[in-house]
Amino acid sequence: MTQGFSLAIDAMGGDNAPDIVLDGLELAAERHPEARFLLVGDEARLGGMLALRKRAAKLCSLRHAPDAIPSDMKPTAALRQGRNSSMRLAIDAVAAREAAGVVSAGNTGALMALAKIVVKALPEIDRPALAAIGPSARGDVVMLDLGANVQCDARNLVEFAIMGETFARAVLGLPAPTFGLLNVGSEELKGDERLRLAAEILRESHVGAQFHGFIEGHDITAGTVDVVVTDGFTGNVALKTGEGALKLMRDLLRQVFTSSVPARLGYLLARPALDRLREWMDPRRYNGAILLGLNGVVVKSHGGTDALGFAHAVDVAMDMVNHRFNDRIREGLARLSAAVEAEPAAAALAPVVGETPA
Amino acid sequence: MTQGFSLAIDAMGGDNAPDIVLDGLELAAERHPEARFLLVGDEARLGGMLALRKRAAKLCSLRHAPDAIPSDMKPTAALRQGRNSSMRLAIDAVAAREAAGVVSAGNTGALMALAKIVVKALPEIDRPALAAIGPSARGDVVMLDLGANVQCDARNLVEFAIMGETFARAVLGLPAPTFGLLNVGSEELKGDERLRLAAEILRESHVGAQFHGFIEGHDITAGTVDVVVTDGFTGNVALKTGEGALKLMRDLLRQVFTSSVPARLGYLLARPALDRLREWMDPRRYNGAILLGLNGVVVKSHGGTDALGFAHAVDVAMDMVNHRFNDRIREGLARLSAAVEAEPAAAALAPVVGETPA
Repeated sequence: MTQGFSLAIDAMGGDNAPDIVLDGLELAAERHPEARFLLVGDEARLGGMLALRKRAAKLCSLRHAPDAIPSDMKPTAALRQGRNSSMRLAIDAVAAREAAGVVSAGNTGALMALAKIVVKALPEIDRPALAAIGPSARGDVVMLDLGANVQCDARNLVEFAIMGETFARAVLGLPAPTFGLLNVGSEELKGDERLRLAAEILRESHVGAQFHGFIEGHDITAGTVDVVVTDGFTGNVALKTGEGALKLMRDLLRQVFTSSVPARLGYLLARPALDRLREWMDPRRYNGAILLGLNGVVVKSHGGTDALGFAHAVDVAMDMVNHRFNDRIREGLARLSAAVEAEPAAAALAPVVGETPA
Repeated sequence: MTQGFSLAIDAMGGDNAPDIVLDGLELAAERHPEARFLLVGDEARLGGMLALRKRAAKLCSLRHAPDAIPSDMKPTAALRQGRNSSMRLAIDAVAAREAAGVVSAGNTGALMALAKIVVKALPEIDRPALAAIGPSARGDVVMLDLGANVQCDARNLVEFAIMGETFARAVLGLPAPTFGLLNVGSEELKGDERLRLAAEILRESHVGAQFHGFIEGHDITAGTVDVVVTDGFTGNVALKTGEGALKLMRDLLRQVFTSSVPARLGYLLARPALDRLREWMDPRRYNGAILLGLNGVVVKSHGGTDALGFAHAVDVAMDMVNHRFNDRIREGLARLSAAVEAEPAAAALAPVVGETPA
């Protein structure tokens, strides 16, 4: 059955829902006039708001949800008590194959738990992973896993690499994205057995030519590769450490530029260039954490974002839907299995990949 | 036996040795007139250079070493072939208890390997750890392990915490440094069993009041704690990711301030304040990676640093020597064992700490 809707939209999730959700859809509608959105939430309220947003109104169908999941609700409670929530009904639409994906700015833990349990992982995938896009010196960089899996084995890392590579093709539009495994050194013997095994499999795979090998922490922002592959513990720490370092620098610059009258004047003179830098690093441009490896596209927008940020999250989800992201992943994993089976040197690794159901 | 020398100095290690080493000692001599340095290297060359540096000359005794370890030599080769090198003879002086510690700007891998094998770990310590000091929004922050141990168990993390806390008292001069365990969330149930067990032991220890619990990546630069405790894999990635993010920001700012005539002018006006920021974040202020948990103080200066940076590395080593750093660690570990034995709730954890030789 073909999905009737491109995306189900949780209209009630996020700090300023449903306003920024609808304003975001109005922006997104301009870029995706072919899309069809299933807007899930308080029907009476949404109907009136949608009447004021002409472009979005054309693409949206309303579905009533009497509840919303609070931002501080535990995932287990959301599972039990959230059956009539806008988030749950939007996710249900993906599970029922009414919509190809879902976008929500609501409770992250609840979205991840509901998506994993209701939408479920692709049969080829052992563990779904959380990915995001960030800035680097050479453009955008994709990193995964960012915390969905605290412990990972070689098979998980290989699957993350295939998913990340496919994601970079779909969303960054790169014809042959490069990727690397995050490690404590770039030499082949660095790291643990798990990393070395994953590297060996990837080198011999159909995307071996795009595999840069091991990379280090500084390579993330240097743009050494398009996709950084790591376990959820390391990825989560690296993401937050990088964000923390950038925040420290921003805060210190703010102090610098307000520390004296000449410094204030200097700021005013450099402002157009500083504004371009700020715009380039704008968190809204990088809004959207993506749960990869499920039977549908699942994008989490930041809860505190504005309409522009929500529209970016919709963009990412639409890119994935339009590129038939999951079909591409399944093809990639099938080619990986074939490569590993055909390559005698990789025979010893077969048990790892062999766990993949055919 | 009391050590005759405060520090053995590898005069021939680093990109600009022995010049910056001797200039660094001349600076350090001003701050540590009570110190005694064993200067190890090419005697003929060093004698003449020392004659030109009066303050350093007063504190230094020369010891001849015919060789120097090249910067690209593998640690295993350094062990076999470096027996007459300046680095090895400086380390030998620590092992022979002639000097309380060693400072070298030479080959990092060789220094770490030689120090571990020749100087050896303290009997109470399972695994030595690599620590460094960096900038945070609230002052300096210590982080360890930065890569000496890719895999760690709960006992290792607990020992790192005791060593880091002691280090922050000795080198940062804090009376009761706070510390936290790096994790993917601050809630008690986050992370793996190893982290939860380490946290439980630390909460019940004699430094439990200083234990902040779990922290996240962004807490490192936010200055949430004085000491960040983590395994060597995560610490190495976090350190390099944070450095990479700061470098990206510096590079982008350089572009901003050269992008137009007004921006250049703005830079000139804000320059005094920007220079203060640059000085505060100066990598030379944070020069020196410290291998903690050995039978002596071992400090690695950055190979490319200048005299000021080398003097800072000597400062760190002298602070550790003057505070009898290793005695403090042994006291800390003894108190930890006593606390764990006295606390009935921690009985289940005794096997972990019980591995510590009495």
